[in-house]
Amino acid sequence: MDIKKLKQLLDSVHSSQISVDEALAQLKDLPYQDISYARVDHHRSLRNGFPEVIFGQGKSVEQIIGIMEAMVSKNDTIMVTRLKKEKADRITKRFVDSIYHPDAKVLIYSSNPIEITGKGTIVVVTAGTSDIPVAEEAAITAQTMGNHVDTLYDVGVAGIHRLIDYKDSLEQASVLIVIAGMEGALPSVVGGLVDKPIIAVPTSTGYGTSFGGLTALFAMLNSCSSGIAVVNIDNGFGAGYVASLINKI
Amino acid sequence: MDIKKLKQLLDSVHSSQISVDEALAQLKDLPYQDISYARVDHHRSLRNGFPEVIFGQGKSVEQIIGIMEAMVSKNDTIMVTRLKKEKADRITKRFVDSIYHPDAKVLIYSSNPIEITGKGTIVVVTAGTSDIPVAEEAAITAQTMGNHVDTLYDVGVAGIHRLIDYKDSLEQASVLIVIAGMEGALPSVVGGLVDKPIIAVPTSTGYGTSFGGLTALFAMLNSCSSGIAVVNIDNGFGAGYVASLINKI
Amino acid sequence: MDIKKLKQLLDSVHSSQISVDEALAQLKDLPYQDISYARVDHHRSLRNGFPEVIFGQGKSVEQIIGIMEAMVSKNDTIMVTRLKKEKADRITKRFVDSIYHPDAKVLIYSSNPIEITGKGTIVVVTAGTSDIPVAEEAAITAQTMGNHVDTLYDVGVAGIHRLIDYKDSLEQASVLIVIAGMEGALPSVVGGLVDKPIIAVPTSTGYGTSFGGLTALFAMLNSCSSGIAVVNIDNGFGAGYVASLINKI
Amino acid sequence: MDIKKLKQLLDSVHSSQISVDEALAQLKDLPYQDISYARVDHHRSLRNGFPEVIFGQGKSVEQIIGIMEAMVSKNDTIMVTRLKKEKADRITKRFVDSIYHPDAKVLIYSSNPIEITGKGTIVVVTAGTSDIPVAEEAAITAQTMGNHVDTLYDVGVAGIHRLIDYKDSLEQASVLIVIAGMEGALPSVVGGLVDKPIIAVPTSTGYGTSFGGLTALFAMLNSCSSGIAVVNIDNGFGAGYVASLINKI
Amino acid sequence: MDIKKLKQLLDSVHSSQISVDEALAQLKDLPYQDISYARVDHHRSLRNGFPEVIFGQGKSVEQIIGIMEAMVSKNDTIMVTRLKKEKADRITKRFVDSIYHPDAKVLIYSSNPIEITGKGTIVVVTAGTSDIPVAEEAAITAQTMGNHVDTLYDVGVAGIHRLIDYKDSLEQASVLIVIAGMEGALPSVVGGLVDKPIIAVPTSTGYGTSFGGLTALFAMLNSCSSGIAVVNIDNGFGAGYVASLINKI
Amino acid sequence: MDIKKLKQLLDSVHSSQISVDEALAQLKDLPYQDISYARVDHHRSLRNGFPEVIFGQGKSVEQIIGIMEAMVSKNDTIMVTRLKKEKADRITKRFVDSIYHPDAKVLIYSSNPIEITGKGTIVVVTAGTSDIPVAEEAAITAQTMGNHVDTLYDVGVAGIHRLIDYKDSLEQASVLIVIAGMEGALPSVVGGLVDKPIIAVPTSTGYGTSFGGLTALFAMLNSCSSGIAVVNIDNGFGAGYVASLINKI
Amino acid sequence: MDIKKLKQLLDSVHSSQISVDEALAQLKDLPYQDISYARVDHHRSLRNGFPEVIFGQGKSVEQIIGIMEAMVSKNDTIMVTRLKKEKADRITKRFVDSIYHPDAKVLIYSSNPIEITGKGTIVVVTAGTSDIPVAEEAAITAQTMGNHVDTLYDVGVAGIHRLIDYKDSLEQASVLIVIAGMEGALPSVVGGLVDKPIIAVPTSTGYGTSFGGLTALFAMLNSCSSGIAVVNIDNGFGAGYVASLINKI
Amino acid sequence: MDIKKLKQLLDSVHSSQISVDEALAQLKDLPYQDISYARVDHHRSLRNGFPEVIFGQGKSVEQIIGIMEAMVSKNDTIMVTRLKKEKADRITKRFVDSIYHPDAKVLIYSSNPIEITGKGTIVVVTAGTSDIPVAEEAAITAQTMGNHVDTLYDVGVAGIHRLIDYKDSLEQASVLIVIAGMEGALPSVVGGLVDKPIIAVPTSTGYGTSFGGLTALFAMLNSCSSGIAVVNIDNGFGAGYVASLINKI
Repeated sequence: MDIKKLKQLLDSVHSSQISVDEALAQLKDLPYQDISYARVDHHRSLRNGFPEVIFGQGKSVEQIIGIMEAMVSKNDTIMVTRLKKEKADRITKRFVDSIYHPDAKVLIYSSNPIEITGKGTIVVVTAGTSDIPVAEEAAITAQTMGNHVDTLYDVGVAGIHRLIDYKDSLEQASVLIVIAGMEGALPSVVGGLVDKPIIAVPTSTGYGTSFGGLTALFAMLNSCSSGIAVVNIDNGFGAGYVASLINKI
Repeated sequence: MDIKKLKQLLDSVHSSQISVDEALAQLKDLPYQDISYARVDHHRSLRNGFPEVIFGQGKSVEQIIGIMEAMVSKNDTIMVTRLKKEKADRITKRFVDSIYHPDAKVLIYSSNPIEITGKGTIVVVTAGTSDIPVAEEAAITAQTMGNHVDTLYDVGVAGIHRLIDYKDSLEQASVLIVIAGMEGALPSVVGGLVDKPIIAVPTSTGYGTSFGGLTALFAMLNSCSSGIAVVNIDNGFGAGYVASLINKI
Repeated sequence: MDIKKLKQLLDSVHSSQISVDEALAQLKDLPYQDISYARVDHHRSLRNGFPEVIFGQGKSVEQIIGIMEAMVSKNDTIMVTRLKKEKADRITKRFVDSIYHPDAKVLIYSSNPIEITGKGTIVVVTAGTSDIPVAEEAAITAQTMGNHVDTLYDVGVAGIHRLIDYKDSLEQASVLIVIAGMEGALPSVVGGLVDKPIIAVPTSTGYGTSFGGLTALFAMLNSCSSGIAVVNIDNGFGAGYVASLINKI
Repeated sequence: MDIKKLKQLLDSVHSSQISVDEALAQLKDLPYQDISYARVDHHRSLRNGFPEVIFGQGKSVEQIIGIMEAMVSKNDTIMVTRLKKEKADRITKRFVDSIYHPDAKVLIYSSNPIEITGKGTIVVVTAGTSDIPVAEEAAITAQTMGNHVDTLYDVGVAGIHRLIDYKDSLEQASVLIVIAGMEGALPSVVGGLVDKPIIAVPTSTGYGTSFGGLTALFAMLNSCSSGIAVVNIDNGFGAGYVASLINKI
Repeated sequence: MDIKKLKQLLDSVHSSQISVDEALAQLKDLPYQDISYARVDHHRSLRNGFPEVIFGQGKSVEQIIGIMEAMVSKNDTIMVTRLKKEKADRITKRFVDSIYHPDAKVLIYSSNPIEITGKGTIVVVTAGTSDIPVAEEAAITAQTMGNHVDTLYDVGVAGIHRLIDYKDSLEQASVLIVIAGMEGALPSVVGGLVDKPIIAVPTSTGYGTSFGGLTALFAMLNSCSSGIAVVNIDNGFGAGYVASLINKI
Repeated sequence: MDIKKLKQLLDSVHSSQISVDEALAQLKDLPYQDISYARVDHHRSLRNGFPEVIFGQGKSVEQIIGIMEAMVSKNDTIMVTRLKKEKADRITKRFVDSIYHPDAKVLIYSSNPIEITGKGTIVVVTAGTSDIPVAEEAAITAQTMGNHVDTLYDVGVAGIHRLIDYKDSLEQASVLIVIAGMEGALPSVVGGLVDKPIIAVPTSTGYGTSFGGLTALFAMLNSCSSGIAVVNIDNGFGAGYVASLINKI
Repeated sequence: MDIKKLKQLLDSVHSSQISVDEALAQLKDLPYQDISYARVDHHRSLRNGFPEVIFGQGKSVEQIIGIMEAMVSKNDTIMVTRLKKEKADRITKRFVDSIYHPDAKVLIYSSNPIEITGKGTIVVVTAGTSDIPVAEEAAITAQTMGNHVDTLYDVGVAGIHRLIDYKDSLEQASVLIVIAGMEGALPSVVGGLVDKPIIAVPTSTGYGTSFGGLTALFAMLNSCSSGIAVVNIDNGFGAGYVASLINKI
Repeated sequence: MDIKKLKQLLDSVHSSQISVDEALAQLKDLPYQDISYARVDHHRSLRNGFPEVIFGQGKSVEQIIGIMEAMVSKNDTIMVTRLKKEKADRITKRFVDSIYHPDAKVLIYSSNPIEITGKGTIVVVTAGTSDIPVAEEAAITAQTMGNHVDTLYDVGVAGIHRLIDYKDSLEQASVLIVIAGMEGALPSVVGGLVDKPIIAVPTSTGYGTSFGGLTALFAMLNSCSSGIAVVNIDNGFGAGYVASLINKI
């Protein structure tokens, strides 16, 4: 239950549009609603400032729809991440107000247009073209949470002049999400160019000793530039989420 | 060279207090000054918004003093991290305006009082008492960069009620630095309680399969709570730095 | 051969219902029966207090049926773990007294109702919904071994109030099985709430630096709470087994 | 504050031996007492059924004495683990009721004789002589928590007949702690001989690919015997603690 | 070219059955014959005392047949390992004197019966039924190299009495091949029972922290029993080969 | 108790030189003698064909002397491995019939000259000079177990002609012990030159990605030559032991 | 844009064959051309001396064709690596001047014959037949960059005489690319035979502790021979590229 | 024996300055001279084009002096690497023509001035000041092997403009040695700026997830720039050696 919905409910009680008993019935599921295979946490959106997010990977379509049904009356916006296209197709049929982003593998259900509440612009940067799906997951997360987002893709360190040409754009960000696989050097270079917080995302791009993103992860944690914090491999959602929290302080 | 010093110089030129040639002489070291074993980067403080930081580990006292001497005329504040007490004692003799913090192993040289420029309060939380040195490094870094800092130590998840009692303090932070070794679970629990960005710091506290902090690091990267980004093991400085950047957006 | 069957045999000899020669014929396979690809160990159920368990993974349907046939005359209850549905379907046709649990991937053959011999209640707790299959394997194992089992699913540390609401249930357990993937923090928090032995089970839920459950495993081994012992990743059976032994002391 | 002390206090209030205000003063530190570098948790002994344990490694003598002083009025028994002899010598001078066990590196402060509250006997078994310090830590922990403890040392699998000769002793245990380094095979063999819960402890004994106990740890987690749960490398304390919880159900 | 074939050739020259030129033509491929994608090494069988072995994995059927054709006139016996059934079916059509062993995934081409040249008996022991394919690869290799081989399967350490019952058989071996997955404890126990050289083979049987056989490998290398040497994970062929060399000294 | 001593005892009984009671008294310690911190296994020398070996690392001088005193009346030869010089000096004072080999860190107590019982010659080969201590441990072990031993040091693969010049010596071995650190390539090359069983020993020589011998270990396990089995890193004793067993079949 | 094309353009301007405006239009994409999902870097061929290379893995056929279309007017030669046959078939239809090498998984588009600009001969050596695909990728890369290339396959260290017979060929190389999987010993032996720079390439050939090429990689980095530098596992392209740079100094 | 010395000897024979017998006596040690603990390889300098190099680590002063004495009559130049100052002091006393470089931990014995035989200039670049010892080892190696060497220290990627200012110097190199610890990003950036072969050297600079240089190593192997080959961690000598071979083609 997000704050807007909760306020509407209390306003309705106040204006006698609905009875106290009806309000009680709606609120009785708080703090969470048990649907046998999941404990839908209606407090979380109030507590954490964001609509529920469903981690789609490893859940059946039936489970996802069940969880969404438990949420939909209490939330304007629901996000499903790591969702394969075949599953998404069945869900968008059930929830016609939802849109699926195939690159990002993210589904957004939204009964109302999303309001911009973040102060500055979040800039999402990638080293290569293979990092774009992770970048899109980050960008859509940040947008859905109410932020302006710019993107700047394929500016890796092997052609350092490409990056330097964009120094101005980078400096106008309030927070940057910098995404790279292989040797994961891009956050270090960006961190040397601008004095803004950087959320670095390692990706599983590469082969051999890239170890599915571990080398990029460890490189980012060892950056000789300061001002960098890191999220899990391929975790575009997490980067978008923390960048949004930062952009709303 | 920090912005204040640079502005003073230009003002002096403008008001004819010093000649253009004198100013030129002072500025000629820009962008960096070669002292044979190091290339002191006077641009960095302008570019990155913070006085120079010297990573003390692995540098001799002579090297550190040499680098400080190259900086001191152009910076109000210099920070030396990972500095053992024996080395610090010799440096504080040479630079009497410097103070050594033995827990944090940090030396701060400062010719002027530090001005508070951060907007909110940075709260530093630790799971155990062994994590305090890393917490102190983070706290001193954030203070030196001009932030209000609160600390809350020894509130690990084995006694969850200790943490919950402090929920209000946690919620008043603009950004949190959460520090834990062993299983590294504290950021997950804090992240479930508040909707503020969390910089998580794994520490090398523990034995056996704590692997010198790796288990805590990986646990933090895998947090089931959102809103968490991570820095390197024992990297209190990095956490304080990125928290400061966030607090100044 | 379980103790009940053995006693029946000896009673029959004693009451002259069967001849000594007949009893001898039945007992001659002890201590184990060689069926060429396996050495069925009839002593184990006597020695270890539990009917034979067949690890189904990597065995053909023919091998499993062969082993069950060698056991069935001497055991009331047989358990097959890590058994895929397609294999199970063929086995339940051959042994009509067997039931397959698809979530847990466990088949239970039982010629008699299972008797409750455990003293207290074993409570099985999971952090998320993805951990449920492992939890079911644990729960069914403990039930089949004659224990009362309660379950409490999806109470992970990101929403700590969900867990604390159930503190009473947790405290009434004689032994707890606590199951979590990702950062594996749940056993630490539960261990801080109750003073009962906890068998912690890491699961392979997660991605990136969850390393297929290793991060959760190491986190659990490093728990800052005492009273926790750990079994192999995804080893619900092992947890159920050891919890049952504890519950029968 | 352990249960006995708390009960005495309440009895004194009830019988008017001390005033309510005095009792209040004593109880006001609950739930925990802040001594600046540590948050002494007086609830833990009530909650977890055991006097406070101080993890000595990485704490200064001053810190340990400070924590003990905060505890001593509210607890009959205090245990300090991983304590080097030099530190212990200074602590036993301050607390004359404390005894130091050099093999186990454990200090026990006890103002009263320890009462046996465990039901059966905990048997501690080691594979080699190098595993004895870990075994002693486990044995002393279990004894201090009120259990009968037997030990059986140096019965590793290279001389399997030594172990088999002791089968009767093993079977009379209520719970076993089995400790081994190198290949860590002993718990598997013991687990095949008896039907009691086994807490396995890997030790860092060995060289080369023993990896400081990791090989033994992984071997124990992969045991082909059931009924085994594992604690961290060299964690004798943890094994003694969980065995004690089991022995008191 | 094996020694028998070479001797026949020289005898034929000596007895003028073939001309020197013909012999020369046959010998001219020595030391090796270039078939573009492989350099067939005719010296190896002379030098190493065994017919050529082709590692089938990763080679096409065409490549294998090509290599066999280059060998067949100079060798009585050819062995192809790690060969899938589908490939084997096509090869046995081309070389009708070849037999495929599906468990071991080994194909043996042999134009003459194999002669026993090894002195004693090689005994192959496994811990479980899942280890049998590796054991069969070892057994067939040793037989093909001219040794008597006995097998003893499914005698793992969880039921130690099964193994002890076979102590006599074990002691009559000249060399033992001991195969185990999971915790890999069997070679340690066998090594404590007999004073014969043991070639230990870890297998990839297991899950979680068995790490595809690494745990068993490291356990075997750390055995507390002496007299054990180890080969690569699942390397039945290597074990059979080295055991055969030992049996022929 | 080695076979010779046992036979002498029985002969004495037979010839009435000692009474049955006296013999009984001597034999009553069988199968093992409990000296509190160790269970001296007098059966092992009978069972495993070799005098007791004491792993010196991690044992105090007092413990070693205690174990030796329990053994000395029943064994002609005792070996202590991994023994530092300072400890050895104190032991050789107590047991004047013992000799310490400082390179190998091995002490040999022997009341009689060692008899050669091995059939062929064991050749010990090293890649570099840093591998010599491990080689000496292997050579002395094999000699003490009654074998002829030859050594060939510093013939690594970077100068392949050095090795090839010694091909004849290599071929005259009954079994080879091949020792190398760094990339561990020597066993592969030797295995391509001779058709004798090779016990390969990786050493911890090297730096960086030699990982303390792991790279050499894994390289040896992956050898493209057949006929190679491997022991633990730096385990010269184990190699000498298994080579001796092979040489005595 | 390669140097030849650029020179042609400037010549055309100089000779008034094209107008300055036309030249400007062609050059305006410099330094790079944004095609939305990729930033085609026309400077790279000028800067790095080689036509653009497209890393085919993980890119769709549409993306590859799009990038090639942006390049083709400005480059004579384009190389696509890690390209599966099915994708290649569709690309060769669109670009008829391109040739696909299935072993190497490389596609070469070339509008003009490649000119030899390298000074000496690059010799590519493999240990086994499984290493040939990587070798072909290296050889084609070096040829496409204008070098004479010789190959020498299947000369691994298990048959060291095969290699020594080719010593002369090896010595005539200007630079060697030495490719091996499993224990990765070949570069060490070659490095001991010749005094030329060696680019070593580990391959993922092997099983068990070959760890997908890691063991070979670490062995090569630890080579006891000097003069060896290493590229990533299976990185034939990288080896061919750096060898070409060396051959053109 | 280097080529110059050998030629002098043969000239002396030719001109009858020394007798054939005398020459024979001097040459009889070829191909190598056995000094019991080492096999000094006089062929290597002829074969590999460089005076002998002694790896000092783990060798005693006596061993090093012994090896040098065996070499000194046949070589003009000898290099000892990884040599601690205390050892060096004793060696320079014995060989007065030797110079010790304390930063690089290298000792150079040279009876004649070193002649420049390399064609271009080798440029050694470091990311930080902590990488300088490794850089010095590389530089001295390359100089001793007869090359012009330039150095450029402390130009890491956190201040990318420092590096770009030196683009011209970088481009004038024939081969570059690029040295970095922590995230190891420098070779990628340099590789994007110049088209010369780069030998990348990871250093153990850093902490936490730098893993003693492994992260830098893996990052360099995964570089998105082409033209980079890598040597072992901290292996300045190896980099200088291979760069020298490249510079002499």
